[in-house]
Order: sequence, then C-alpha cells, then structure tokens
Amino acid sequence: MTKLILVRHGQSQWNLENRFTGWVDVDLTEEGIAEANKAGELILKEGIQFDAAFTSYQKRAIKTLWLALEGIDQMYIPVTKDWHLNERHYGGLTSLNKQETRDKHGDEQVHIWRRSFDVPPPQIDKNHEYHPSKEVKYSHIAPSELPTGESLKITTERVLPYYKSQIVPHLKAGSNLIISAHGNSLRALMKEIFGVPDDDIPGFEFPTGNPLLLDMDEKTLKPKAARYLDESRAKELPAV
Amino acid sequence: MTKLILVRHGQSQWNLENRFTGWVDVDLTEEGIAEANKAGELILKEGIQFDAAFTSYQKRAIKTLWLALEGIDQMYIPVTKDWHLNERHYGGLTSLNKQETRDKHGDEQVHIWRRSFDVPPPQIDKNHEYHPSKEVKYSHIAPSELPTGESLKITTERVLPYYKSQIVPHLKAGSNLIISAHGNSLRALMKEIFGVPDDDIPGFEFPTGNPLLLDMDEKTLKPKAARYLDESRAKELPAV
Repeated sequence: MTKLILVRHGQSQWNLENRFTGWVDVDLTEEGIAEANKAGELILKEGIQFDAAFTSYQKRAIKTLWLALEGIDQMYIPVTKDWHLNERHYGGLTSLNKQETRDKHGDEQVHIWRRSFDVPPPQIDKNHEYHPSKEVKYSHIAPSELPTGESLKITTERVLPYYKSQIVPHLKAGSNLIISAHGNSLRALMKEIFGVPDDDIPGFEFPTGNPLLLDMDEKTLKPKAARYLDESRAKELPAV
Repeated sequence: MTKLILVRHGQSQWNLENRFTGWVDVDLTEEGIAEANKAGELILKEGIQFDAAFTSYQKRAIKTLWLALEGIDQMYIPVTKDWHLNERHYGGLTSLNKQETRDKHGDEQVHIWRRSFDVPPPQIDKNHEYHPSKEVKYSHIAPSELPTGESLKITTERVLPYYKSQIVPHLKAGSNLIISAHGNSLRALMKEIFGVPDDDIPGFEFPTGNPLLLDMDEKTLKPKAARYLDESRAKELPAV
C-alpha cells in the first residue's frame, strides 16, 4: 500500500478577490501561507516518508509544497514541476471577477462554464496580457500545445496522460508521493483515481491547503481509503 | 557566455554558535533568511533567466535557494538536489564549538584541520548521534560511500566528479545555472573553475548568502569575469 497525498494550494490573492485565475501566476495570501504550514503539520503527524513530490509551474502550488516539505523536514526529496499539472486555463474569463462575469454573461452561463464537464470558456485573445505565450516559462511549449481556454474535460485530457506516464510508475514501484496542484488539475486526478463519471466530477471540490491522504493499491491504482487531514475543513469525497 | 551563480547558504544556527556543522542539517537563522532574501534581490537586478538550479541535501542550502528563486520569480525552474554538494563532513569534530576544540586539541591542530588541504579530522564514531547512517535521507547511499570525516581534498574528490558529470554538460549547452551550497563544497568548485592550487584554496572563503556571479566561457569552462553581487560583503577572489 503506497501513500499518495493530493493537496490544493493555500488561498491565493485571486481566490480572495474571487477572480478567475487559471494560469495567472498569483501568489499565496498570508492565509494561504498559514494553510500550507498547517498542511505540513498535519502531514507530519502521519509519519510518512515520501520518495518524491510533484507540482505545477505555478508559484501558489510550488510554495504550498515547499512549506509543507519544510514542515515535515523532507525538503531534500526530489520535486518535479510540470505545466501539465497547472490549473484549468480559463481563457477569456481570466482575471475577471466572478460577480462581474455573472452580471455580464448571466448566472446560468457562468454556472455552465464553471460546473459543466465539457463546455469551454471563450478563448483568450492572443493580445491579452495573460496569454500564456507572453510568459518566458512557457516558451519551450509548442504554441499549438499551449492551452488558451479549457473545459474541465480538456484539463483532464492534459493532466491524465502526464499522471499515467510520469507519476503512476512511481506508485506502481511503491513510492510514497505528494502532489501539490490546483482545484481542477486535482479534480482530473480525483476523476481518474476514484473513477468518477464526467457529469459528477464538477460537483467535487478540494478545500485549499487541506491534504487528501489516499492509501493506494499499487496494482489497481485505486484508493483503499481516503480522508482529508483537516477534518474540520473536509469536503465530500467520492466513494472508495 | 553562460551565467553561473554560486551562493553559499545564509547564516545557520551553528554558524552563529561557531560550531563545526558539516553534515548536520542545521536551519537558517533569521539573519540567514534575510541574507537569502537579499541574495534574491541582488540576483534579480542582474536580469538573468536561469535554466536550472542545483543544491545539496541540506536545508540551509535548499532554503537559501528557494528564497532566492522566489525573489527572482523563477520558482518553476528545475532544481536538482544531491548529497555530493553537501558541506565537508567534519568527522569527530561535528557539533563541537570551535573554541572548545581549540582548548582541547590546541590552536595549531585546529588550524591544520580547518585550513590544510589534505589533513582529515578524526573520523566520526559509528555510534555518534550525527553519524550520517542515522539519517533516512542517506539510507540509499552505500555505507562505504558515506563520508565520515573529510579533508578539503576528500570533499573536492566527492564534489568535482558530480560537477563534471551532472553540471558541466548544462554549462556546455549554454544554460544559465545557480548552485546553492556550502563553504567547502563551493571551495571545491572554485578550485576547479579558477584553477586554484591545493595549498591556496583553503585561504579563500565564501561569504554567506552573497551570490558570486561568474561569466563562464562554455568552451573552456573558465570564468571571463567574476564578482560578488553584494560588494560590501565581498571576499577576495582568485584571479580570472
């Protein structure tokens, strides 16, 4: 049985401002830093020795991971950062306040964009200040591969091949892993690991900075047990 | 011309207490954290886009690197951690206060241990609380490979094969790199890069948390220029 921890980054500045963040590289708030430190304390109590960690290219997830690794005194383990674990790209909604977006496009349309599985938002304009081609760190990615507005389905199609090719081999080898990522890249992992149907997965939400501990069967890659380490801030989980 | 930054970790708790640290995983002091943040500010002014970073298995160097990467907003670059970049192992002197060691062994002997190239300290006892075999993070290293008391020469013989096989290929490929390490693992690199004779290298000292910027010729792997970014805390450098 290997241990797999999935942790969503702590509160970010745009979580606080209720804006569509996606690929914008927003930092943690003080509250988010406290959540990440708390995540470290909670993981420490489990006494898990990790073999490797994975995170995205985005500082809110990287910093959450770093603070948690510091909290468990395992800063030396290998950390792989990859853009395939980034948040869903919100396209033309990027940086908009959610209430303003509802006022402009209507409650129903915004609900569909946020809570459907396969309806993408409008694509981001190529001249938009937050178009990913403007960031040096994505300059090694072929323009045709760069997301410019993803449904959760499209995010899933980006996250899962990475998970299967780069992370699953570690699980099969019995390694204990921690993955620090984002609301929707973690939904993609949850969908795969728990076998959640398309229409149900948007209804599950990861609380910020609250580690989800999975006891994984190395053969089936399914969880035998699953629980959030901060019970007071736990959310509903799919059945194991 | 590639850019290579060598940075010694910020002040640690045992730097402050003037104790032989070596492989003991001592944390940064508040002053050390401030030095690491300052290192980030100084590197930011140079406007260097890094391709990769290297550090040791020791938290004082890892944290210095993390704070510097946060300061330059390049947290996403790949970071390789390897025990070959660890500090010199001080053997039986580990954890002793330097004045106490002088009182016990005499000024001259301590000077020889600290400032000779090839005189190792007494080996650490296998039951010593700081014997490296007691740390989980070194459990993957063959016992015969684990240092138990190194001269600077022995440290150099550990650091340089790693540098030549794992770091030099990146320099030859034109990558800009940052290495966060320790007083003696950095001396080993300085010896190689500047071509410093055995007897002279113990006389050079890296100031804590002060980045050394090298403009490296990718063909010769020698520096065309070298300077500490915090001029007010610079130390003497070998001639380029």
